[in-house]
Amino acid sequence: MRYSKHQLHTFTSSVFIKCGMSREDALQAADVLLASDLRGIDSHGVARLVGYIRLWEAGRANMQPAHKIIHETPSTATLDADAGLGLVIAPKAMQIAIEKAKNVGTGWVAIQNSNHFGIAAYHAMLALPHDMIGISMTNASPLVAPTFSKERMLGTNPICIAVPAQKHQPFILDMATSNAANGKLEIAQRVNKPVPPGWVQTATGKESTDANEVKNGGSLMPLGGHKGYGLGAAVDILSAVLSGANYGPWVPPFVTFLNPLDELPGKGIGHFVGAMRIDAFRPADEFKKHMDNWISRFKNAERIDPDQEVLIPGEPEYRMMLERDTNGIPLNDKVVKDLQDLGKKFDIQL
Amino acid sequence: MRYSKHQLHTFTSSVFIKCGMSREDALQAADVLLASDLRGIDSHGVARLVGYIRLWEAGRANMQPAHKIIHETPSTATLDADAGLGLVIAPKAMQIAIEKAKNVGTGWVAIQNSNHFGIAAYHAMLALPHDMIGISMTNASPLVAPTFSKERMLGTNPICIAVPAQKHQPFILDMATSNAANGKLEIAQRVNKPVPPGWVQTATGKESTDANEVKNGGSLMPLGGHKGYGLGAAVDILSAVLSGANYGPWVPPFVTFLNPLDELPGKGIGHFVGAMRIDAFRPADEFKKHMDNWISRFKNAERIDPDQEVLIPGEPEYRMMLERDTNGIPLNDKVVKDLQDLGKKFDIQL
Repeated sequence: MRYSKHQLHTFTSSVFIKCGMSREDALQAADVLLASDLRGIDSHGVARLVGYIRLWEAGRANMQPAHKIIHETPSTATLDADAGLGLVIAPKAMQIAIEKAKNVGTGWVAIQNSNHFGIAAYHAMLALPHDMIGISMTNASPLVAPTFSKERMLGTNPICIAVPAQKHQPFILDMATSNAANGKLEIAQRVNKPVPPGWVQTATGKESTDANEVKNGGSLMPLGGHKGYGLGAAVDILSAVLSGANYGPWVPPFVTFLNPLDELPGKGIGHFVGAMRIDAFRPADEFKKHMDNWISRFKNAERIDPDQEVLIPGEPEYRMMLERDTNGIPLNDKVVKDLQDLGKKFDIQL
Repeated sequence: MRYSKHQLHTFTSSVFIKCGMSREDALQAADVLLASDLRGIDSHGVARLVGYIRLWEAGRANMQPAHKIIHETPSTATLDADAGLGLVIAPKAMQIAIEKAKNVGTGWVAIQNSNHFGIAAYHAMLALPHDMIGISMTNASPLVAPTFSKERMLGTNPICIAVPAQKHQPFILDMATSNAANGKLEIAQRVNKPVPPGWVQTATGKESTDANEVKNGGSLMPLGGHKGYGLGAAVDILSAVLSGANYGPWVPPFVTFLNPLDELPGKGIGHFVGAMRIDAFRPADEFKKHMDNWISRFKNAERIDPDQEVLIPGEPEYRMMLERDTNGIPLNDKVVKDLQDLGKKFDIQL
């Protein structure tokens, strides 16, 4: 079953408004979720709406946050998100980063006391119309074990970098620092298929191909071994140790059937975003022409299989966006049921 | 055979001086190479000295460069390294980044027209005594094929992030964006052992475990598949498209038996470095206490094997540094022979 972007956007923002969110913030939050569905990242789109609402019902998310800047220099700021949704605060943080970049070349904002911010790409991409490179990252509920450990210590902690080009679509790398993206694991669980080696390990730390391992006390494995552990750790440090949020195993779980730990070292979860003005380094037109050249050359790299083209980061998501913008967004039965239940609760038609 | 740090440092700087380098630059370049040997990254230390000298002899490296800032904002700069060694220009670029961070919170420097800069960690770590987070990355001679391609398009393009702690040693992630670090591949070649799957592919793009594959027209594979391709690409873009250096397959080879391609899109190779003042986000003491807590907690993550401790990025290199500082640096026969030959050529005793 497919739903139009407009239909899901209206439904989503209406639900947020019923929870007390301002109209402006609700439209923003719906924008982030729909961008995820349009780009084909089904795990982070409207499928998560019910999760955000549960956080609010559990008193763990504030739908009327008064965020504030608690620390600042010409190129940096630290924000307290007042327990609001990352969906709402991260775009505001990017706007602050963009303003700082306009003034002094780059802007960097660390955010504490937040909740999950959806897909990283949405936020980093806000820099693109300003001829800036956008960067965004976040920590998340612990699921990934460090190398040599069987304990869940890190989230899938994604990193995004968005770079503008001229005639080509922008370069957009948006990647989890675990081998398995959550979404792909969920799909494998649903169809009960084995997952590739390196995705998950058992509760005792043995490699496994059972997609249900994480449900049974196991953990996700970091991208490519110890390097992915290091990358995920760096994201945790920039997002949370730098901002004053919770880090490592203390990051509060997104699911409300698990409670946050006691004696937390920080507030909420953390994000880190940045914007770099291209013409703080070289003229933007010159840069974008070279990005076009970079992209063309990589598209034309010699193929292994003549029928399998070489892809540029962001290219599959862009194509998906065009397709779903036209044909609508497919939702599975479980997600439709969740949305219908939300609709009943808040008296809104899906 | 082991050599003392002092002995190798004196030899290395003397060789650079004989090539016309200023005393100050020669000491700096030797410092970077020795830091690599001390930290156990044997592939990037004095083993490469002969390679740098060959670049100079081939007229591709300038030992008396007059680098200049060609673009600047309060938080950014772009440097033309005047074909000097990255070993010399990258520390200068970090000093500029650190000064800018003192003034406006962060500093970011893109470098064009350079040569290889040794280990990324040396440069990023320069930020640590200033209570700053240091970041460094570089592109390099093409060896890595993008996903679905059999063509060498990217270097092993490393990323380093160095983060200070209080009572613990700093967190230092210094990682290639390929699965195999060059050094580990060289060791496998020397002892003629197979390498793990995922390290290399043949000239036609088939996965292989033959360490000699790259010599035979094959390529290295990106870290963890397409994500590592994306990361290596991001390093290439920040280091070279942003600075005006060569990118992708146009990056000039480090070895002098290969010539740079014709019609280059930029100058030399490129680096990108940055420094972020911790107290531009939160008080440095507070941050460093939390870093200590972060490190302690991760050290104490539940082990899979009780005898295999969980490591913090930078910990193995720090231990190696202590050991080699005391016991000297082991060099293999091939490297000793190369150094002795250099010694004869320049009339310097090893």
